Amino acid sequence: MATWFTEKQTENFGITAKVNRTLHKETTDFQELEMVETEEWGNMLLLDDMVMTTEKDEFVYHEMMAHVPLFTHPSPKKVLIVGGGDGGVIREVLKHNSVEQATLAEIDGKVIEYSKKYLPSIAGTLDDVRVDVQVSDGFMHIAKSEREYDVIMVDSTEPVGPAVTLFTKGFYEGIAKALKEDGILVAQTDNPWFKADLIRQVYGDVKETFPITRVYTANIPTYPSGLWTFTMGSKIYDPLKVSDERFTAFDTKYYTKELHKACFALPKFVKDMTKEE
Amino acid sequence: MATWFTEKQTENFGITAKVNRTLHKETTDFQELEMVETEEWGNMLLLDDMVMTTEKDEFVYHEMMAHVPLFTHPSPKKVLIVGGGDGGVIREVLKHNSVEQATLAEIDGKVIEYSKKYLPSIAGTLDDVRVDVQVSDGFMHIAKSEREYDVIMVDSTEPVGPAVTLFTKGFYEGIAKALKEDGILVAQTDNPWFKADLIRQVYGDVKETFPITRVYTANIPTYPSGLWTFTMGSKIYDPLKVSDERFTAFDTKYYTKELHKACFALPKFVKDMTKEE
Repeated sequence: MATWFTEKQTENFGITAKVNRTLHKETTDFQELEMVETEEWGNMLLLDDMVMTTEKDEFVYHEMMAHVPLFTHPSPKKVLIVGGGDGGVIREVLKHNSVEQATLAEIDGKVIEYSKKYLPSIAGTLDDVRVDVQVSDGFMHIAKSEREYDVIMVDSTEPVGPAVTLFTKGFYEGIAKALKEDGILVAQTDNPWFKADLIRQVYGDVKETFPITRVYTANIPTYPSGLWTFTMGSKIYDPLKVSDERFTAFDTKYYTKELHKACFALPKFVKDMTKEE
Repeated sequence: MATWFTEKQTENFGITAKVNRTLHKETTDFQELEMVETEEWGNMLLLDDMVMTTEKDEFVYHEMMAHVPLFTHPSPKKVLIVGGGDGGVIREVLKHNSVEQATLAEIDGKVIEYSKKYLPSIAGTLDDVRVDVQVSDGFMHIAKSEREYDVIMVDSTEPVGPAVTLFTKGFYEGIAKALKEDGILVAQTDNPWFKADLIRQVYGDVKETFPITRVYTANIPTYPSGLWTFTMGSKIYDPLKVSDERFTAFDTKYYTKELHKACFALPKFVKDMTKEE
């Protein structure tokens, strides 16, 4: 019997992928964690039955979360990633030579443990000397930080379970406080086809907290609708005004300096979600 | 028992959608045609078990196929659509006041018939006075045309069954002949995640036939990977050099004049498919 994993991305629609075998499955203190080997996407991490990342398409999310804010900032030195226990964002952050320290605040140590074991191409740089891995609640970590970070990235799960507090206005206000006076926030904010209300709400909350607020997109085939949004809040630097000289060359599979600006050109129905009512 | 339609987009991956009821099903002279009512996407047209269009997300494909070439051309008057029997591209083409005649060469009359019946919001303008509907083989229609069209759009199915000839170099050469001396071709060219070879091949063939060849993308959630490509071949006009004054305002849900240029900024792995080996 062939085994297929099906994620119902809505009540009435989903994706389905052939699974060769289950590598690990356990109920952690926070969520259901499952690592499966798929035929199409390589190893795949599931949390609460939702696809978090896969070996084949992970580069899109990780590159776009990391490089857009890091090239927007002229010289990012201290970076905080909230969530992101698979290590993919860290791997991309470390490509920036200016970065002296990248702190990971992941609430679930099991995500880190099994990503290292079964997603080595993603988690392989978590032991780098510039990385400070903290198994801790990102919300609490933010609450105790002040004027500390150049860039904070919220690489969270959906706003259910442990991630609920990461989609609140109070959290964005905490991030603004934890950032330096020219700091940048970027958060993953789900997809515009099924989660329009969430995008509108986060955009409004970030806009009330940061002088510059912009939404950008990337294509992630294993995420709902294939179109993912990221919301950026910036105190000073505008991602659309980065000069060509800022970009340094390194190997990417999705991000390019042309896309850095083009990804902010939103489809009309998404653009409408960022307008005042 | 709930009914779910599953399209295996590859051998090992697919989408699945809840179906309320089947509205029509028949084997035409060319393919299996099925019209189903889904809970998530509204009415959905399937050909040979592949999603062709749905009421909820059809606007992306149809707007992006029509408006990018039509705004690139300074004054398109005669337009040919090969395929496209659902009428969605025609609906968008007619928004351009310069267009005097839009010819549809759809090989399967049943697609037109059942789109009119079950997809009225898509097929509703097929009876417009400016539209010339021909139930005919697009390849043959092209072969007998010379210096006739300003823009030709290839709105075909996948390169299987009746559409095989529509992905050949001979076809693009025929289109070049059927176009006026400043004409533009645009063709749907599938997705870069699972069909890289096809994109490379079409790009190469079009590039050998047209002075300006460019690939652009759009997010279509019900199509494989959610990332769709279109390949444009142009004799004179460059889509990236359209002046701002060219754009006239009309209602769209996806296309914007900013996206007109931004959609040509390709993810690195897609850009690499358009490079010479």
